[in-house]
Amino acid sequence: MALRHYTLDFNLSTAVDSASTVPDLLSILHEQEMTETVHDTNGHGYLATFVGKNGRLVILRVHSHGLVTIDLQCYEGDNIAQLDNLLNALEKKLNTLLNGNIARTKRLPALVRGAKVDRYWPTADGRLIEYDIDRVVYEEESAYQNIKILHSQQFGNILVLNGDVNLAESDSSYTQAIMGSGKENYAGKEVLILGGGDGGILAEVVKQKPKMITMVEISFIDSAIKETVTKTCCQLDRVSVGNNIVILVEDCVPVLKKIATPLVEKYQCMVRTGAFVVNSLCISILKSHPGLDNKKHFSRLLTDLLEQALSTKGRLRRLRRCFNYTRTVSLAQAKYGQFSSPAPHSHSDSCMGSYFHEAGFHLFHFK
Amino acid sequence: MALRHYTLDFNLSTAVDSASTVPDLLSILHEQEMTETVHDTNGHGYLATFVGKNGRLVILRVHSHGLVTIDLQCYEGDNIAQLDNLLNALEKKLNTLLNGNIARTKRLPALVRGAKVDRYWPTADGRLIEYDIDRVVYEEESAYQNIKILHSQQFGNILVLNGDVNLAESDSSYTQAIMGSGKENYAGKEVLILGGGDGGILAEVVKQKPKMITMVEISFIDSAIKETVTKTCCQLDRVSVGNNIVILVEDCVPVLKKIATPLVEKYQCMVRTGAFVVNSLCISILKSHPGLDNKKHFSRLLTDLLEQALSTKGRLRRLRRCFNYTRTVSLAQAKYGQFSSPAPHSHSDSCMGSYFHEAGFHLFHFK
Repeated sequence: MALRHYTLDFNLSTAVDSASTVPDLLSILHEQEMTETVHDTNGHGYLATFVGKNGRLVILRVHSHGLVTIDLQCYEGDNIAQLDNLLNALEKKLNTLLNGNIARTKRLPALVRGAKVDRYWPTADGRLIEYDIDRVVYEEESAYQNIKILHSQQFGNILVLNGDVNLAESDSSYTQAIMGSGKENYAGKEVLILGGGDGGILAEVVKQKPKMITMVEISFIDSAIKETVTKTCCQLDRVSVGNNIVILVEDCVPVLKKIATPLVEKYQCMVRTGAFVVNSLCISILKSHPGLDNKKHFSRLLTDLLEQALSTKGRLRRLRRCFNYTRTVSLAQAKYGQFSSPAPHSHSDSCMGSYFHEAGFHLFHFK
Repeated sequence: MALRHYTLDFNLSTAVDSASTVPDLLSILHEQEMTETVHDTNGHGYLATFVGKNGRLVILRVHSHGLVTIDLQCYEGDNIAQLDNLLNALEKKLNTLLNGNIARTKRLPALVRGAKVDRYWPTADGRLIEYDIDRVVYEEESAYQNIKILHSQQFGNILVLNGDVNLAESDSSYTQAIMGSGKENYAGKEVLILGGGDGGILAEVVKQKPKMITMVEISFIDSAIKETVTKTCCQLDRVSVGNNIVILVEDCVPVLKKIATPLVEKYQCMVRTGAFVVNSLCISILKSHPGLDNKKHFSRLLTDLLEQALSTKGRLRRLRRCFNYTRTVSLAQAKYGQFSSPAPHSHSDSCMGSYFHEAGFHLFHFK
């Protein structure tokens, strides 16, 4: 049973005297048959808690510098209309009492805590976002990551890896943007795809008849999952895998290490003139590298390896991911700028609905 | 001074015995020199509050059906690293105590309450969304609406009317989508623009050399504001307003009533064959219609008037606005479907970054 948590806050223009506001609010709260406790705050304003018989809890704080905060917690099955009325009554009373001194009133949608279906998936830059998720379609703790498929009314099924929103059915623009569809020509080229276990990129690249495709993916998305994200995923058995496609179900780090070593012929196809790298690695897939203690280290290792592997002419397309991930971007830019002939790069932004931020894409040109 | 509100929740697979979890948590909380109060919950689990000397407040609840919730409130200027450590310690201890019984742990980004710059702007369908807003550029209480310009790192300046996110600098796709750019030809047509006080639609329509443009806007966005949202707004003095443009700074409702009355010649231009209506009205602009007590009534009145005004051949393009606004959409569809020759309509979706939802656009064809 989930807990609904309501907040109602009043920002005031000046300091506030609790004696002038509290008694009238108490008269409303006393009607609720709750047990009141007034707490000693050591001079930090007024603080009272009210506990009801049905799990209800109200916290009233009058912060003397000019802020009134009210919290109301109740169980999901409680009489929500009654509680809305209580909040309405408190809001109305405060509007009257503080008339002329209110800079802002804020009553947020209730935070639903401990619900069976979790709707809160913060962005990569730590902002609180509530999705319109109505059910969990699939959940698995794989050897490499926690995999969830959540259904959103507007985005369709969403793939969530280790708590990061990864791909939604509405995100076919992701495949288009990371491949540079309409701008890049893969025909006759040698292509290395890092990640992309949903199959979407592979399916699109194959259509353009490249000379050779090597795809390295540690954990292919289960076909059962792909069936749920059909608009953006592709079943491998629906891709005509010919002699010119090598699919390595491996960790990309040792593979890149081999590519970076000139003597290993198996992987040489990727370092020839005109090679394309489409890096669609999910940065959250860190469980597979226990030696790497954070995302930054993984990014750096990958950048180093790509630098060595792609020392000849080539192009790298990758997701800059989150608009606000500026640190990661700067780090990568600084790093890529250290190529013997600095790799010129460009970027384009694309609106990726399910990410709740503008997603940026990088294109690096190697000489 | 804002209040930071942290939450840490544990969903359990089975019911929980507070005696087995509470003492170990208390040993951590007792180190914080806070005053403890254990509350009587009438059989609704364990509830204790802890008040610190510096305005800190901790609420510990062990809901017996299988949920542990912890709230921590502190002032913005408090020692955040120390409080992170406290939450880390509580999370670690609970992970040990409840090992094997944890269905989900959720620690959300702190809710910042009463901050000078408000980052929380819920969507039209009532979901909690935190924007990356770093400053208030402008604020005004006009006769018709509350106008704010907020600066977002990713969306640029955002225009917020009566608390609804309206237009951001990153939203030039809005003008393109509502006009049906690339699909519609406005050359030689008679065009009615409802709303659009930012000037963006007018500036684009003018370029296509229509025969006549009538624009009805109750409250043009101040030029000072337009200067801050330059990428999507347009100053009227930069539009070459000729004899074929009528700009009515009026409430559109009486204007539409006049259009709907065949004898009023002044407005007849809009009901001729081939008329285009671009409806960019902001539904939040209700203060101007005190007689209309909610958005539904306003929508209905508008729909009725448009039905009468556009009884001849014509096209109406309008924002369906929010993907999840399904009720409004159904209402409008039902209504438009009642035309003597039912108006066929199509819609297209466009990702509107700053709205935090897919935005849909409607095109109605009148015969």
